[in-house]
Amino acid sequence: MLHGMREDEEAGRVTLAQVAEEAGVSISTVSKVLNGRQDVSRPTRSKVERLLEIHGYRRTPKSAWEAPLIEIVFHELDSIWAMELIRGIENVAKDNDASVVLTESGTRHAPDPGWIEGVLRRRPLGVVLVFSSLPPEVKQQLRSRAIPFVIIDPAGDPEPDVPSVGSANWSGGVAATRHLIESGHRRIGIITGPEDMLCSLARLDGFRSAMGMAGLAVDPALVAFGDFHVEGGRLRAMEMLSRPDRPTAIFAGSDLQALGVLEAARLHGLKVPDDLSVVGYDDVALARWTSPALTTVHQPLRKMAEEAAQMLLRLRAEESTATRLELSTSLVVRSSTAPPPAGI
Amino acid sequence: MLHGMREDEEAGRVTLAQVAEEAGVSISTVSKVLNGRQDVSRPTRSKVERLLEIHGYRRTPKSAWEAPLIEIVFHELDSIWAMELIRGIENVAKDNDASVVLTESGTRHAPDPGWIEGVLRRRPLGVVLVFSSLPPEVKQQLRSRAIPFVIIDPAGDPEPDVPSVGSANWSGGVAATRHLIESGHRRIGIITGPEDMLCSLARLDGFRSAMGMAGLAVDPALVAFGDFHVEGGRLRAMEMLSRPDRPTAIFAGSDLQALGVLEAARLHGLKVPDDLSVVGYDDVALARWTSPALTTVHQPLRKMAEEAAQMLLRLRAEESTATRLELSTSLVVRSSTAPPPAGI
Repeated sequence: MLHGMREDEEAGRVTLAQVAEEAGVSISTVSKVLNGRQDVSRPTRSKVERLLEIHGYRRTPKSAWEAPLIEIVFHELDSIWAMELIRGIENVAKDNDASVVLTESGTRHAPDPGWIEGVLRRRPLGVVLVFSSLPPEVKQQLRSRAIPFVIIDPAGDPEPDVPSVGSANWSGGVAATRHLIESGHRRIGIITGPEDMLCSLARLDGFRSAMGMAGLAVDPALVAFGDFHVEGGRLRAMEMLSRPDRPTAIFAGSDLQALGVLEAARLHGLKVPDDLSVVGYDDVALARWTSPALTTVHQPLRKMAEEAAQMLLRLRAEESTATRLELSTSLVVRSSTAPPPAGI
Repeated sequence: MLHGMREDEEAGRVTLAQVAEEAGVSISTVSKVLNGRQDVSRPTRSKVERLLEIHGYRRTPKSAWEAPLIEIVFHELDSIWAMELIRGIENVAKDNDASVVLTESGTRHAPDPGWIEGVLRRRPLGVVLVFSSLPPEVKQQLRSRAIPFVIIDPAGDPEPDVPSVGSANWSGGVAATRHLIESGHRRIGIITGPEDMLCSLARLDGFRSAMGMAGLAVDPALVAFGDFHVEGGRLRAMEMLSRPDRPTAIFAGSDLQALGVLEAARLHGLKVPDDLSVVGYDDVALARWTSPALTTVHQPLRKMAEEAAQMLLRLRAEESTATRLELSTSLVVRSSTAPPPAGI
């Protein structure tokens, strides 16, 4: 085993020398590129990167690192999820005497190009990315430096070649809807998330299936797409509640949207849950603190982050070639749901 | 200037050698202790630490650091403040091409002893601590390694010899109370935070002063101490609202306590703001999302964190010997306050 590891290292070194020769630069220049150093010209860097990619170079992971780091990267730190995910990473880091490096960067789809330089300099144990996808060159750069990475993808749209952790959105949609049906509701509205996110569609499909299984028709006027924020929930709910045939219950698609529904109900003079039942999704901390406390679908965000960090450490130890892990969701019944008003 | 810096460095080196000689160890052992390395026996480490302290040794800061880090340490990451503070640090880090290392450690009063080892190994640009105080040995360890540190102290009880950032709690208490008085309220209750936190007392004193200035008596039955969490607010409000001479307005001392007051009002069948006005404190994100949206005192948490990080960088550049910085608070009027019900 030890002998095998030395062989790997030597294989690595040979490739490094080959890359240097092919690129017409010194080995130390190739090494600088690998370490994200700035004192290499841009054209040389691109040439070396390209050759590293062609040769599929992989650095031997450092065995002992003095100040081990686990990185987590968000495109939007403001997200109400962010703290739960940070908690999960922090828990695993603590157990492994590592620290957590936090970065906000890029768009929903990928971190900024400059981000990778910092990661290469810091050489963390691994990187957890809260993004739906990663540009191929970023994947290659991380792979060539033997830095494991995992995507946490609550949006449910991961790339097949990247290890990722998600949760069961469709089942969550079914559970929320079934709870309302079992409470006696027949006229149920849904405000799901944006139309271009797979998780929104999965929750909506779960809703449709639960309605269908109960023999209930879905009124297209009671299906709306929100923005996963309070305002989207409020606007869509204001429309639905203005109808003469308003729903007796709304599945709000996210806890923030549910807050918007609560506000719309208040503005319409409707009491929750007496006049209107509301179900959220996510079970973020504030779901316990709304008035009334929110019945919601628990998405195990902290657990998802813990699993992602554990996956990193297993990938690093080459104990796993993990792909997609999907954690289950569960309904949490609080005080925002009740049977429909009598006579409806 | 350059010559002066070299002299400082040499002075540092001499002390390092002196420490080694006095301790009867090699210079490299002293250096290992300074770098937080584990391969030094505990008695040797203590001896070296003691001598470093006696001699007031200060390492010359590294001028160029390849992967600059700013650290932030919390004792309670769950706090609803945490994300705002992280945002502020992240903003400054981004502007300075640094990354943020996040640690949860210790109690309200100090991080765990083991935490310092990691910091010494990572050698960050500086450390922001969200704690009220720091043990003397931690201060000495950070100072001897030339790692600047600043305390963010929303509790308002900083130590005099540590640079810190806080906000104006007393003025916030005055502003909240004046707003209620100006809306026509006379019977006003307050639920402030825990009795052993200076910020709770400062807000309460602000309340008393505003009442006094308006010639209004403070009914001791309407003064309560909470826990800065939802449950404390709910319990204290349930008691106040059960009184035959219940208040027409409650200053809730924190946004979480205000959520508890909203729930207590709902359970008493009271409408906010028609039957009861409520003012929060902090202006965390969810204050905009409650039903109705919360009138509250804005505590500039993000700005406080930005100032703390900037202070670190100035301390590092030796451009400042900052002490206490107190940012102002301001009232944000939303929908949870109105004139008292007619006839009261």
